[in-house]
Amino acid sequence: MVYNTSQGIVPGKINVHLVPHTHDDVGWLKTVDQYYVGSNNSIQGACVQNVLDSLIPSLLADKNRKFVYVEQAFFQRWWRQQSEAVKKIVQLLVSSGQLELINGGWCMHDEAATHYIDMIDQTTLGHKFIKEQFNVTPRIGWQIDPFGHSAVQAYLLGAEVGFDALFFGRIDYQDRAKRRDEKKLEVIWQGSKSHGSSSQVNLKYLLALSIGNYEPPTGFYFEVNDDSPVVQDDINLFDYNVQERVNDFVAAAFSQANVTRSNHVMWTMGTDFKYQYAETWFRNMDKLIHYVNQDGRVNALYSTPSLYTDAKHALNESWPLKTDDYFPYADRINAYWTGYFTSRPAIKGYVRMMSGYYLAARQLEFFRGRSKSGPTTDSLADALAIAQHHDAVTGTEKQHVANDYAKRLSIGYKECPLLNISYCPASEVDLSLGKKLVVLVYNSLGWKRTGVVRIPVINDNIVVKDSTGKLITSQFLPIVDALTTMRKFYTSAYTGEFPSTSPMYWLAFTAMVPPVGFSTYVISSASASIKPISYVFDGSQTSAIEIGSGNLKLIYSGDNGKLMQYTNSRSLVNISLEQSYIYYAGDDGKKDLQITRVYKEKEHAEIEFVVGPIPIDDGIGKEIVTQIKTKIGNYKTFYTDSNGRDFLERIRDYRADWDLQVNQPIAGNYYPINLGTYIKDKNTELSVLVDRSVGGSSITDGEVEIMLHRRLLYDDGRGVAEALNETVCVRDTCSGLTDDKWTNFPRPTFSAMDPSYTLPDNVAIITLQELEDRTVLLRLAHLYEVGEDTDLSVMATVELKRVFPNKKQWETSLSANQERAEMERKRLSWKVEGSNAKQETFSKGGPVDPVKLVVELAPMEIRTFIIDFNSNLVQY
Amino acid sequence: MVYNTSQGIVPGKINVHLVPHTHDDVGWLKTVDQYYVGSNNSIQGACVQNVLDSLIPSLLADKNRKFVYVEQAFFQRWWRQQSEAVKKIVQLLVSSGQLELINGGWCMHDEAATHYIDMIDQTTLGHKFIKEQFNVTPRIGWQIDPFGHSAVQAYLLGAEVGFDALFFGRIDYQDRAKRRDEKKLEVIWQGSKSHGSSSQVNLKYLLALSIGNYEPPTGFYFEVNDDSPVVQDDINLFDYNVQERVNDFVAAAFSQANVTRSNHVMWTMGTDFKYQYAETWFRNMDKLIHYVNQDGRVNALYSTPSLYTDAKHALNESWPLKTDDYFPYADRINAYWTGYFTSRPAIKGYVRMMSGYYLAARQLEFFRGRSKSGPTTDSLADALAIAQHHDAVTGTEKQHVANDYAKRLSIGYKECPLLNISYCPASEVDLSLGKKLVVLVYNSLGWKRTGVVRIPVINDNIVVKDSTGKLITSQFLPIVDALTTMRKFYTSAYTGEFPSTSPMYWLAFTAMVPPVGFSTYVISSASASIKPISYVFDGSQTSAIEIGSGNLKLIYSGDNGKLMQYTNSRSLVNISLEQSYIYYAGDDGKKDLQITRVYKEKEHAEIEFVVGPIPIDDGIGKEIVTQIKTKIGNYKTFYTDSNGRDFLERIRDYRADWDLQVNQPIAGNYYPINLGTYIKDKNTELSVLVDRSVGGSSITDGEVEIMLHRRLLYDDGRGVAEALNETVCVRDTCSGLTDDKWTNFPRPTFSAMDPSYTLPDNVAIITLQELEDRTVLLRLAHLYEVGEDTDLSVMATVELKRVFPNKKQWETSLSANQERAEMERKRLSWKVEGSNAKQETFSKGGPVDPVKLVVELAPMEIRTFIIDFNSNLVQY
Repeated sequence: MVYNTSQGIVPGKINVHLVPHTHDDVGWLKTVDQYYVGSNNSIQGACVQNVLDSLIPSLLADKNRKFVYVEQAFFQRWWRQQSEAVKKIVQLLVSSGQLELINGGWCMHDEAATHYIDMIDQTTLGHKFIKEQFNVTPRIGWQIDPFGHSAVQAYLLGAEVGFDALFFGRIDYQDRAKRRDEKKLEVIWQGSKSHGSSSQVNLKYLLALSIGNYEPPTGFYFEVNDDSPVVQDDINLFDYNVQERVNDFVAAAFSQANVTRSNHVMWTMGTDFKYQYAETWFRNMDKLIHYVNQDGRVNALYSTPSLYTDAKHALNESWPLKTDDYFPYADRINAYWTGYFTSRPAIKGYVRMMSGYYLAARQLEFFRGRSKSGPTTDSLADALAIAQHHDAVTGTEKQHVANDYAKRLSIGYKECPLLNISYCPASEVDLSLGKKLVVLVYNSLGWKRTGVVRIPVINDNIVVKDSTGKLITSQFLPIVDALTTMRKFYTSAYTGEFPSTSPMYWLAFTAMVPPVGFSTYVISSASASIKPISYVFDGSQTSAIEIGSGNLKLIYSGDNGKLMQYTNSRSLVNISLEQSYIYYAGDDGKKDLQITRVYKEKEHAEIEFVVGPIPIDDGIGKEIVTQIKTKIGNYKTFYTDSNGRDFLERIRDYRADWDLQVNQPIAGNYYPINLGTYIKDKNTELSVLVDRSVGGSSITDGEVEIMLHRRLLYDDGRGVAEALNETVCVRDTCSGLTDDKWTNFPRPTFSAMDPSYTLPDNVAIITLQELEDRTVLLRLAHLYEVGEDTDLSVMATVELKRVFPNKKQWETSLSANQERAEMERKRLSWKVEGSNAKQETFSKGGPVDPVKLVVELAPMEIRTFIIDFNSNLVQY
Repeated sequence: MVYNTSQGIVPGKINVHLVPHTHDDVGWLKTVDQYYVGSNNSIQGACVQNVLDSLIPSLLADKNRKFVYVEQAFFQRWWRQQSEAVKKIVQLLVSSGQLELINGGWCMHDEAATHYIDMIDQTTLGHKFIKEQFNVTPRIGWQIDPFGHSAVQAYLLGAEVGFDALFFGRIDYQDRAKRRDEKKLEVIWQGSKSHGSSSQVNLKYLLALSIGNYEPPTGFYFEVNDDSPVVQDDINLFDYNVQERVNDFVAAAFSQANVTRSNHVMWTMGTDFKYQYAETWFRNMDKLIHYVNQDGRVNALYSTPSLYTDAKHALNESWPLKTDDYFPYADRINAYWTGYFTSRPAIKGYVRMMSGYYLAARQLEFFRGRSKSGPTTDSLADALAIAQHHDAVTGTEKQHVANDYAKRLSIGYKECPLLNISYCPASEVDLSLGKKLVVLVYNSLGWKRTGVVRIPVINDNIVVKDSTGKLITSQFLPIVDALTTMRKFYTSAYTGEFPSTSPMYWLAFTAMVPPVGFSTYVISSASASIKPISYVFDGSQTSAIEIGSGNLKLIYSGDNGKLMQYTNSRSLVNISLEQSYIYYAGDDGKKDLQITRVYKEKEHAEIEFVVGPIPIDDGIGKEIVTQIKTKIGNYKTFYTDSNGRDFLERIRDYRADWDLQVNQPIAGNYYPINLGTYIKDKNTELSVLVDRSVGGSSITDGEVEIMLHRRLLYDDGRGVAEALNETVCVRDTCSGLTDDKWTNFPRPTFSAMDPSYTLPDNVAIITLQELEDRTVLLRLAHLYEVGEDTDLSVMATVELKRVFPNKKQWETSLSANQERAEMERKRLSWKVEGSNAKQETFSKGGPVDPVKLVVELAPMEIRTFIIDFNSNLVQY
């Protein structure tokens, strides 16, 4: 029997686009490698190798069959194992469009707990692989599983990487119901109020399509052993069911057409880890297409999201406009998926720390030159990319999988992997024996920077000198007993070592570092040291306690340790506030410790908290939150960031898109926070910045609430979020410098920039990375939104010549897989319903003059360049 | 990575033969077609189409990979759907030995509930298909799942079809333990005391290998989603485990070598319905072979049972001798698998009835000439072959699957399918309106035959005439109310019809039919009919009741209906006996009916029982048995047949092969009965013949016990075994003759044989079948064992000339897939341990002289011939 599967679109009929796909979580119940090879199947039957192995012969068997593959973390694992012959076949399948690589990042990143730089990095990693191996650029965003959707995803990781459409699932059930009724599931999504795709007359957003879920209609699952009725069309066998199955198909098509604009509907033919034997799906889809088209009531065809998008575009229709984002997400009443904004805070912190480390490490790697044989940043890039997956940094994975992500990060990080439990053998030596510890502090930013470095040491008889030999003021902060106990336990658990000494103190000192450069400091035994002032709050004081010797003072209540007031003597701010810790889901066994430090010369308070172990003897998971109460009259309004970039206005118990039925007054008002949140009134603003992604809200006026932790993760033992430690640790190399490496940095101080030049305050280098072919990837980001700051929310300029003198450069898409001009040329234009074409325009940096090399950046703009170090710029 | 899988046998090492296989039940929890297409997966995830589809590319990927396939009912379904291109590829794979078809019957038939003619037929059907499509003859018997193993299987379906070895599983756990300890799992099995394979000096039995189970060692299951650890040999991924897996492999190999003769061990790499994506198995076996051979402690190779058999044979060793059979089977203490000898007696009866019908129908088909376009016996052949499966006629399948087998049989049978519930519209008409009913009674035997025909009719005003118009004496047997009620219920259930009339009587008359021929009878309204005598036992009589007007009388107890005595006035036999019905697992709700008929002119008692519905309100399944008690002193000894052929001696609470631990004095003494059972002493013998397969025993001396039924099969409604109905129905066409068909049989009587010739009393034609190419398959069977009868247990002769004059013929193997001489030439010789070569010889019919065409048959011998009707014999 030969099936006719060659059908294209038929105008005037309902066209059912069958899109064969698999959704392969880059870790979830199993680790990424377990999913790939198909081990640990007792937890979940899943093997991505089977999917890709079995797919190829099925595609070859019929040129009309199509497939989309998404997660490049898996795809490159498979690719690496293939013979050249297979690779050639697959390249042909990709170039013919039978196999389309969509989304194309290393993983399908989360959109709540991810930082935009990490999102860009992991997408770039995947797009680079695809470009190199197949010379194609993905056209389609495919975020079908993340639990809510961010503004940054739409405008930055969508439009700016050249996607024509973004398919996504999982929006609030109330929102979805309304959109279904009104046929508004497909929208033009304007994610940023600062940032458009162009200043041209035609808006060039992408089409964003909410697809509900990513599974086939009921009864059309065809995995090995699935129990949907297969199409039985052999008249020699019993149970012939062709007409019955055609009727099922037509009914499902009509049902979907009722909630979809235009006569094109898409069926996502697949779900988690399906197509382990691809032929089972194609065999049945072949038959369905054949018999449904014979029937003729609807038209069925093999398709892809690209073809579907083109079909929508060809209609030349206008689409509703959507602004802001799709958070928070509830899939039904009382089921808000907001706890994961905070779940596994240790992993979230570790990811953020590694992200900063990776940013700096790539810069250093570029300065040294990429090693052909030795270690590179590649494994950290891979680990970080994997960690952005929507079951990784989200904290929604199994414990052993969380451990796997951490292990991968630690392999990338290599040294002092356990600093977050205060274990750093290199610094914990007896310097009285004449040993010296050299600390190199690197600054990845485009400005000169001053920061606090903190290192565990075993005694306070220590001095710090800068590279000129000048003594530096340092502080010794006692390490509390609880930390010491944890340290012993986890050091042995993770390293198998039982350190004979315990560090008594954090040695803290202030380092000053030039832009995109480093300074070195030498730590040695004291001969005549300056004794630092140290503070500790141990809970024994009963009256108000004043902490801080500089401009900023914090005043604590002596009887319960609550922060009551802070005072900044320089800027004359004196605000009453109350900080407290509570938890949702009651039990009285929590053992919170509070530690607040005020460093010399810093004018903000850094609050470091040790929460845990949270008792779970009662079997009740707990969500520990901190609440900061002020007198600010914010009238239900607060602001949270989108993936660390734009700030979005949030109004309590309100959604712009629909009439919210409030049934969860707390969970339903939680939003993801990657960078920070703030509330304000006419006079005052309270900003809370976070060192990792968390969830937060303002549940009552004047209050900011941040969820810190959700439960004890017993096997992981990372119940404590040591935010400040990690932040400091990110920005130095800690114990990382051996003598060998030292010789690679012959200068005690270094800056990549023209000494007379510094980046403007509103622009940051978010990527500086050497690529394999001695070209360099550079990303510059404007840090301010329109209207955010009187002075800084303006067009900024960067003189590239003064950063990379005399090098050829060209601007690319955000993921650097195509020239920007090419991307803009290819991009589909979409029309907004009821919108005047002139209505919305945005300022944007102009083209870069090849001689002047001045890059303009409008507010919130990110521009990506490739700098070619192989060819010097020809001076005109 | 390229794996070295080319390893052959390495002398001096333990050779682990990896035999990739799948075990595909031809119906069990799902129907055969559901298993094939993979529907109804909610019951069991299984799809044979996946297995065969995915197998081909996996075999093509590496020429060292091998696979054995068994069940031709599935294979031919798949084959029919393949393109010519795929067929060519598969033919190459078969001819190269990469894909070997073993066993080769339509199914893996049961060995307890099957009749030897059915076993031969279903094997022939599969072997014919294989021969036609691939020109090969299977060498290997593969009965790895049936629940015990019969003597007939070994000598008839093993040696006589040309197998060199028979692999089987499932033998008594006590037997197995002993054989393991003594390394006697592999034996030379002499199944028949009458029948050897040859009268030559060297014995030419097959090697019979008990393989325990047919699964891989623990931890080596590699189906999609199986949780055995896959071999992870990619050093770029986590959880590399090559050495660990090699160690597991070597340990399992040593363990198996400890219980196996020689240094060859076989691993059955597969189990029920595995290889749905074949590559998952081969991928891991490739790696295991590669790394295990690198390790070197044992030698691993892709193999087949043929290669394994050849390796055993090459050792030139002697093997232990095994006689009799492997029944009954217990897999552990108190777990005797003997109930299934009787389970689903309705299906068992239906199969036996259809088997007889098929035998006769093939003969008729031959006489008419096979129709090219119209109906043939093929669908009945297929249905009967499928019904021999070890979860079909066994009764071990699900209810809906039992229904499926019955449906297939009924499609083959076509007409009067519900005669077993006394529904026959053709005969249930009012003949007073002048209608006549023509009944053609066919005799498939080689002798003239007299038998009783029974047809439901609506009144007793009916006469029967023979083809000469002579009136025939007939009887009217009242149909009891219980049957009428059931009939109404099931007729409407099965046909959707509500017959307006109910038959009041069985019309019974004696038909006389020439050998391999037919007679016709005309039934019409009586003008002056002879009133027959009718008998009915309705339970109201209270004193002893005498039944029967001829020589044979049965005397029943009036108060409880028990048979007390029978008398044969002609041969002066007068024996006291008591027949009673009891059941195991107590409850008091049974509603047994007894009906015993004595026909005029017949001299044995036919006992017809209606058992049911058995109440199951108490949730307890019941096993209904009938016990016939006599005074025969049989001293624990009784005899049961092997698949309706040889009778084997059984001794209560005793096994010849090991010291039996008796823990189930009833179940452990049950044996399968296909033809009958008998007990005897010096003076008397009681034989009980059965009309379908049942289980039975002699639990106390002088008694024969037959299990009749095990429980009510509610949905099936076939709780009643109407043995005689069905037998009669098989031998006539009942309502089958329309005028149109009648014209094809222009003669009122017919016999295929020379009118002056009849077959000897000890020889039967068990097959007479036209093949597609106008050749005819003929099987002749000697019916007596050595020593069974003074007159008949002797060499018999058949003059083929007088059956098929002047036609060319040649003798073949039992399954007719090769010339007999060729089979004997190729057959491996095996040596029996401790046995003198001259010790055992058997008489056997000699070669057939091509001119005289006289076939000799020794006791129990079956000879198979192809008669070619295309070419007349050249007379020398």
